[in-house]
Amino acid sequence: MKLLFIEIRHNPLLWLLVFVPVMFAAAKLKPEAHTLLFMLSVLAIVPLATLLSHATESVAAKTGDAVGGLLNATLGNLTELVIALTALRAGQYMLVKASIAGAIVTNTLFMLGASFLLGGLKHHVQEYNRVSGRMQASLLFLATIAMLIPSAVSQADSATVAAFTRKLSVGLAVLLIVAYGLGTLFSLKTHRELFASAEHGEAGETPWPMGLALATLAAVTVLVALVSEVFVESVQKAAEAFGMTPAFVGFIVVALVGGAAEMASAFSGARKNRLDLSVGIALGSASQIALFVAPVLVLVSYFIGPTPMDLQFWPGAVVMILIATLTATLVTNSGRSAWFVGVLVLMVYLTFAMTLYLLPPKG
Amino acid sequence: MKLLFIEIRHNPLLWLLVFVPVMFAAAKLKPEAHTLLFMLSVLAIVPLATLLSHATESVAAKTGDAVGGLLNATLGNLTELVIALTALRAGQYMLVKASIAGAIVTNTLFMLGASFLLGGLKHHVQEYNRVSGRMQASLLFLATIAMLIPSAVSQADSATVAAFTRKLSVGLAVLLIVAYGLGTLFSLKTHRELFASAEHGEAGETPWPMGLALATLAAVTVLVALVSEVFVESVQKAAEAFGMTPAFVGFIVVALVGGAAEMASAFSGARKNRLDLSVGIALGSASQIALFVAPVLVLVSYFIGPTPMDLQFWPGAVVMILIATLTATLVTNSGRSAWFVGVLVLMVYLTFAMTLYLLPPKG
Amino acid sequence: MKLLFIEIRHNPLLWLLVFVPVMFAAAKLKPEAHTLLFMLSVLAIVPLATLLSHATESVAAKTGDAVGGLLNATLGNLTELVIALTALRAGQYMLVKASIAGAIVTNTLFMLGASFLLGGLKHHVQEYNRVSGRMQASLLFLATIAMLIPSAVSQADSATVAAFTRKLSVGLAVLLIVAYGLGTLFSLKTHRELFASAEHGEAGETPWPMGLALATLAAVTVLVALVSEVFVESVQKAAEAFGMTPAFVGFIVVALVGGAAEMASAFSGARKNRLDLSVGIALGSASQIALFVAPVLVLVSYFIGPTPMDLQFWPGAVVMILIATLTATLVTNSGRSAWFVGVLVLMVYLTFAMTLYLLPPKG
Repeated sequence: MKLLFIEIRHNPLLWLLVFVPVMFAAAKLKPEAHTLLFMLSVLAIVPLATLLSHATESVAAKTGDAVGGLLNATLGNLTELVIALTALRAGQYMLVKASIAGAIVTNTLFMLGASFLLGGLKHHVQEYNRVSGRMQASLLFLATIAMLIPSAVSQADSATVAAFTRKLSVGLAVLLIVAYGLGTLFSLKTHRELFASAEHGEAGETPWPMGLALATLAAVTVLVALVSEVFVESVQKAAEAFGMTPAFVGFIVVALVGGAAEMASAFSGARKNRLDLSVGIALGSASQIALFVAPVLVLVSYFIGPTPMDLQFWPGAVVMILIATLTATLVTNSGRSAWFVGVLVLMVYLTFAMTLYLLPPKG
Repeated sequence: MKLLFIEIRHNPLLWLLVFVPVMFAAAKLKPEAHTLLFMLSVLAIVPLATLLSHATESVAAKTGDAVGGLLNATLGNLTELVIALTALRAGQYMLVKASIAGAIVTNTLFMLGASFLLGGLKHHVQEYNRVSGRMQASLLFLATIAMLIPSAVSQADSATVAAFTRKLSVGLAVLLIVAYGLGTLFSLKTHRELFASAEHGEAGETPWPMGLALATLAAVTVLVALVSEVFVESVQKAAEAFGMTPAFVGFIVVALVGGAAEMASAFSGARKNRLDLSVGIALGSASQIALFVAPVLVLVSYFIGPTPMDLQFWPGAVVMILIATLTATLVTNSGRSAWFVGVLVLMVYLTFAMTLYLLPPKG
Repeated sequence: MKLLFIEIRHNPLLWLLVFVPVMFAAAKLKPEAHTLLFMLSVLAIVPLATLLSHATESVAAKTGDAVGGLLNATLGNLTELVIALTALRAGQYMLVKASIAGAIVTNTLFMLGASFLLGGLKHHVQEYNRVSGRMQASLLFLATIAMLIPSAVSQADSATVAAFTRKLSVGLAVLLIVAYGLGTLFSLKTHRELFASAEHGEAGETPWPMGLALATLAAVTVLVALVSEVFVESVQKAAEAFGMTPAFVGFIVVALVGGAAEMASAFSGARKNRLDLSVGIALGSASQIALFVAPVLVLVSYFIGPTPMDLQFWPGAVVMILIATLTATLVTNSGRSAWFVGVLVLMVYLTFAMTLYLLPPKG
């Protein structure tokens, strides 16, 4: 418990934890103040995600490499998963899909671009392991391609019916999870040396003892779920108040909130001239969304949602995901970076954000 | 003749030759048993394609490098060409186009992916000549882009009329064949050293004498043509019986059947840690379809088909071809491979196959 | 003045200057001879562009590296800018957009492809600086992606309204110009060593004295503007007479005419085995169109055009630009070139030209 307080004192992000009780109080007292609840829930999720990330890493560090790696790989995007599950249960499929697409785009463009920019402002030219960067970019590209196939093919073909898309989505979800399992085997067991440098190796931090870590993991997951509920309920109305489209909220706001903890790690790696770490976190996290989070949501939707969810994205999202992964592939191809590369990658992200912000709401 | 029998005894694929007479007997006795005829014709084409491939190589080996290379380059996809010509004469343009698109996709995704997987299961990490791999992937990319331009542009533009597409297709076919001729000059004459390692160098096999090779070439081509006729006639009805869409049959079944012989060579190369060979066969064969087989079919359609054929593909096929060649480009970029790369490439192929299988038939 | 005559005597392109007065005379005497005026104006723009290019370089050489580089970067596409401004003032937005898209496509495909071919016919295999080639190709890719986002997203989304596209285009134009400014800072100040080899270093030519250079710059810009006016007025009617579509004229003719001077430099670099120079000119010039010329035209359209212009391109143009920049990225990836690579790149360009030539006019 003392360790938890030390951690909190040293990490300014965690001071935001104060907003967790504030939010619950506000939700009780003023259930109609959607805009306020939305902002409080955003402020509450960020530190919870940071705690979750540290607890996962502590458990991973204690349980040894293989199990720990598996845990890290499975729980790395736990925040995104919990938020999406809450939205799924509420039947808000548009928000679920936007947050899947947005997480991939934000991880590849914003996290990567800001890492390049922040690293580049401190170091003239940064070199990183080109081989593992390329390997990870290829995996990401193939993973997103597989995820997008129903959208690409059926969007193009007029004679499509919903039943086809739904069957295809289930088949695809199974395929993606199998590929994810094989990929975990590959990166943790048979070819771990290729991914060595991309491990979440925060050398400076001391891992928590097992008991604390597990308790934190359990308690914080429940808290995230509760906060997510308020977030998902309030987001729609708050978005209207701010003049934001639902697409913008799902794509940009949810993705930035859910990924805050990983971004902190990626940016700190870039500043320390360890771009391998930043590239590994950004691309690995994006791959995980495509290969694990998205298919799990499709399969789970058969049990908890009002109706099954398919993997059909709206055409604009398909274009953005493809551009984001292509950009990541191109940019990591040379194994070198300088600040302007980060500026251009961020600019692509900004144009996406601007487009979604200005996009007239449908209907 | 004795050599032919030795060959047959050593190559289990050739035992399937027994299905050639069986199929002709069945076609005579039970012309209405479409499903049976379809399966028999598939089983008969595979060994004939293998013989054709060996005969071509024997002629090539005897006639010296330049003429031999030219022969190999022109006749390498003879099976696909004969099947497509038969379908063309029968006016089944949908099947012709699906088999063109399918041959490119199957060669780049299935042949390459399975080579990486089979090689990777035996060897930890496989390195191959990056420079020639990239050069061949670029050629393939440009070749398919050129082939797809009518589809890409006119699909996007509503004000298109059939006459425009037809004129464009003929002009394009001429351009593609000129590029193919120049490409042959390039790879066999001026820059042959770049392609050295990708030659079909089956060192272990003794080439047949000229007479036997030429006779086999002629006889087997006729046999393939006759078997193709049964195949093309029965495929539609058999597909219905199996619940397969015509798109699935053209894209997947025809492509796998037509490419069986080349796949055997590519896979054996991968197992022997000669990935250069596998990559060369897969990408070279796909380029040949785009630069030679497709334009020849367009031009020939003016003489043997009921109406001229254009190069307009349906949007889903365009997307699949582009993804396939982009994937090949990305994956061969690093010059390194491991089993999971093969898994992901195969997964993309599987999702294509699943999509086409589930696709509701039009109309 | 004497230097100017020496220059003219040595550079056969400049002999075309004789067409400048001829064109003005013709415009006075036969204002209805559109086809003649069109051809004369094309013949007059080519030498003027060459003079403009040399004057810019002379000023740049005299003013030192930083200011000179900035001048070169800003005025490098002055001819294209002046032609586009003239078309903008005449309200011919279709022509403006076609010439933006065409300049990018022509620079990346024709200029690059012809450089590879011309260089490859003289040198067996040409090597060039892979790192700076890749960096420039990435910049170009990101720049065009950013420019195309309004088209990509809103083309896909049916619920789009003109107001949205217009707002987005203005926001994007500002972003692009900021990125351009940062890019200039990057290539001229903080990371100039990466771009060292790509400087327009025509070592053999003596720069003009400052006075002559500035006077030429001013006078020729005015002349280009006057000739452009005749060009823009006559191009539509002349195109009809030649059976050319407006898309073909904007995409191919205007782009080739406007870029003639740069092409001469790029080709001469390729022949001298200095492919770095050719790649730098081709990709740099294309990036400049996307990051500087296009957004300037959008912003200026609020002041000089009849109505504001947006950055929405027709789908065929989007496809062509994307293919062109992807091709450039792939082809410069290996840092090696041979003649057949040039042939294939030119073939892609030729298929574009053929498609646009055959395209039935709308309406």
